Amino acid sequence: MEEMQEKIQQLIKEKRINELHKLLEEINSADFPSLFEELEEDKIVIIYRLLSKEKAAEVFAELDSDVQENLINVFTDKELKTVVNELFMDDTVDLIEEMPSTVVKRILNNIGAKDRKVINELLNFPEDSAGSIMTTEFVEFKEDITIQEGFDIIRKTGIKKETVYCCYVVDKFRKLVGSVDVKEMLTSNSNMKISEIMEENPISVLTTEDQEDVAKMFDKYNYMAIPVVDKEERLVGIVTIDDAIDVMQDENTEDFEKMAAMIPNEETYFKTGVFTHARNRIIWLLVLMLSSTFTGAIIEKYQNAFAAIPILVAFIPMIMDTGGNCGSQSSTLIIRGLALDEIKISDILKVIWKELRVAIVVGVTLAAVTAVRIYFQYGRNYQGQIIQLSIVVGVTLILTSLIAKLVGGILPIVAKKFKLDPAIMAAPLITTIVDMCAMLVFFKCAVIVMGL
Amino acid sequence: MEEMQEKIQQLIKEKRINELHKLLEEINSADFPSLFEELEEDKIVIIYRLLSKEKAAEVFAELDSDVQENLINVFTDKELKTVVNELFMDDTVDLIEEMPSTVVKRILNNIGAKDRKVINELLNFPEDSAGSIMTTEFVEFKEDITIQEGFDIIRKTGIKKETVYCCYVVDKFRKLVGSVDVKEMLTSNSNMKISEIMEENPISVLTTEDQEDVAKMFDKYNYMAIPVVDKEERLVGIVTIDDAIDVMQDENTEDFEKMAAMIPNEETYFKTGVFTHARNRIIWLLVLMLSSTFTGAIIEKYQNAFAAIPILVAFIPMIMDTGGNCGSQSSTLIIRGLALDEIKISDILKVIWKELRVAIVVGVTLAAVTAVRIYFQYGRNYQGQIIQLSIVVGVTLILTSLIAKLVGGILPIVAKKFKLDPAIMAAPLITTIVDMCAMLVFFKCAVIVMGL
Repeated sequence: MEEMQEKIQQLIKEKRINELHKLLEEINSADFPSLFEELEEDKIVIIYRLLSKEKAAEVFAELDSDVQENLINVFTDKELKTVVNELFMDDTVDLIEEMPSTVVKRILNNIGAKDRKVINELLNFPEDSAGSIMTTEFVEFKEDITIQEGFDIIRKTGIKKETVYCCYVVDKFRKLVGSVDVKEMLTSNSNMKISEIMEENPISVLTTEDQEDVAKMFDKYNYMAIPVVDKEERLVGIVTIDDAIDVMQDENTEDFEKMAAMIPNEETYFKTGVFTHARNRIIWLLVLMLSSTFTGAIIEKYQNAFAAIPILVAFIPMIMDTGGNCGSQSSTLIIRGLALDEIKISDILKVIWKELRVAIVVGVTLAAVTAVRIYFQYGRNYQGQIIQLSIVVGVTLILTSLIAKLVGGILPIVAKKFKLDPAIMAAPLITTIVDMCAMLVFFKCAVIVMGL
Repeated sequence: MEEMQEKIQQLIKEKRINELHKLLEEINSADFPSLFEELEEDKIVIIYRLLSKEKAAEVFAELDSDVQENLINVFTDKELKTVVNELFMDDTVDLIEEMPSTVVKRILNNIGAKDRKVINELLNFPEDSAGSIMTTEFVEFKEDITIQEGFDIIRKTGIKKETVYCCYVVDKFRKLVGSVDVKEMLTSNSNMKISEIMEENPISVLTTEDQEDVAKMFDKYNYMAIPVVDKEERLVGIVTIDDAIDVMQDENTEDFEKMAAMIPNEETYFKTGVFTHARNRIIWLLVLMLSSTFTGAIIEKYQNAFAAIPILVAFIPMIMDTGGNCGSQSSTLIIRGLALDEIKISDILKVIWKELRVAIVVGVTLAAVTAVRIYFQYGRNYQGQIIQLSIVVGVTLILTSLIAKLVGGILPIVAKKFKLDPAIMAAPLITTIVDMCAMLVFFKCAVIVMGL
């Protein structure tokens, strides 16, 4: 990419416009954002104006919103109109949602009345709904046409459609009655009726459906597109697989962020300002920090215990860390399983039974290893108490592992049951809860076994 | 789904085979695995045998490997042959990889010699390579044919191809020279040559390319398929978008598991046995448990400090948890950014500069809140030392936040630099490292400020 940038800089400098034009047409549209990254604004404008009309729209749709805004600001009205008319409807809507209001006004002024109406409708769908990610540019057939007539429609209108490979059949009330793949059309006799080869009652989603659920359907059913209908079952748009992939990746990123105790952020790491980063992180940090003072209070209560045997304090980090790790392993597996629909709410007893057994195997192993470690590390200095110490730490590890795995296994499912996002029940919160239990178990054990 | 199961059970019981057959054909192939979940084996066999040949193969490809194995065991050789011949090549390879050797032998015996050769080649590609997920069933054109001739080829061979929408053009040495979308073919004059409308030098990948990188290309370029070539640039297969989505989701799951200190596992939660679960979790738990004894050793060194002021011990959980959370926030953002190619290794200084500033904002806020908390909670009992205590805890929080955010920001990038998976530098490891630093800072501060 850097090589390419240098070559382009060179061509601009030497005004070898023809060569530059040829080079640019060969670059994939999706590579332009990184190409533009290090270039000055005036050079970006020069390059952009050298692109063919179709390429320019493709490239524009890929660009980051700040670059888009800069370009629109130097566009003449005519240029703006060309770009906006070449963009697919869902890309135009994305653009409008990102731009400041003055720019939006200019964009809307350069769109035809009919398209403007569609855009306004699209803008009104709730965020994260199927309606907000669908496009209105799909191929639609009447029931009674032949395959040949279908091909004619594709030939005439296909270039402006986001996909031509899944076509949809509507009745006279515009209700969705079938879907037909171009593969099916290509491999059937072209005199047959579309209605003979179409799939009846195709799977569709409502405009209000959650975009995450729509994305999951792509994963499960291997579709290229899914039709979107309104409450009256009329076909109003389609969601295409490329948008579904974006949703999938965004939802995954959101889960990663929530699971690390952050408020999810739609922008990339570098595009997010320092104060936004700080704000997204600090709320959970404060909540968890204040919660962990309860663990502190438990420890405070046992001052006499560690006054008598100070070495107990040295075990606190190990017990806390191990408990936290045990719990977050379980919660991560359950959160991910819920997200992929591999685990259902009704599986809660199966999860408990599995985690219980895993916890015992894990806990006993950890306890055994630690007992050996204690013997070698402290055997000489704490001769009289070495067995009690091993018992206290060992029992604590086993019980902590049990508590951690159960809490980690159960809480995400409970969260889902109460319509909360299971992802918030991840490592940080589980750690804080498990810490408290672990310290209680540890000092209670110590008091009992060592007679403090 | 439960309703459907009951209805099917009913139809089997009453032997209403025609109705059952009709009902089954209407169910989407991807829904059969969950349909079969609660059914007895003999009923699954009855249902399976009622499916049409094409549907049966589609359903078979979707099933879990244990159900596949059971079915193969009751199949006659003829039935097995039919299924295997209907499966796409990549699905056959997946099947062979999952089955025990006796079943594999039976499968290979029922495949034609030519296909067996292809399968053997596919099986030899390294795991997680483009070659291992590609299919060999694609549409291929010679350079000099017309669009009309292209359509004839699709019509004749298309039904057995995994996708017909991206076709590939090869020269007489079978070298990949172009790609052409059916959309382009449908909207161009059918007497034109394919070579006139094809995209020259299409993006392709080598058979040895990492499957994760291939999946990323789908995300970036919005392709439906990507051609795979061998070292001599000859076209040998294609990767389709549905397989790329599976790779993406698997890689995400793998990252989630690694980031929670587990060895990644390809099976689902419930399909994994208790001992496998325990084994996948215990290695990291042991490593981290033993590492955190260093933190314990640091605390042990300052026995005299907390013997003098026992309340110091009560702050240990809060400082450790907060440090861990600060660090894992940063490491998660960086790991995810690296996975999505939003952050590059060369960005390390930019990351440090950003994390530094965020850490100061976050650290100062946490310190201020804690100072207020200390004043109200301990103001009465520790009157003489309240200011020193606040200073010690506050300074520790600020320094810990700084260390945590820097360690969390830098380590994943360093890991990537050394060709390790950044995901292992997630919360658990960062927490253990930060804990150690935090305890050192805390007690050093206490000794200095409180004159212990």
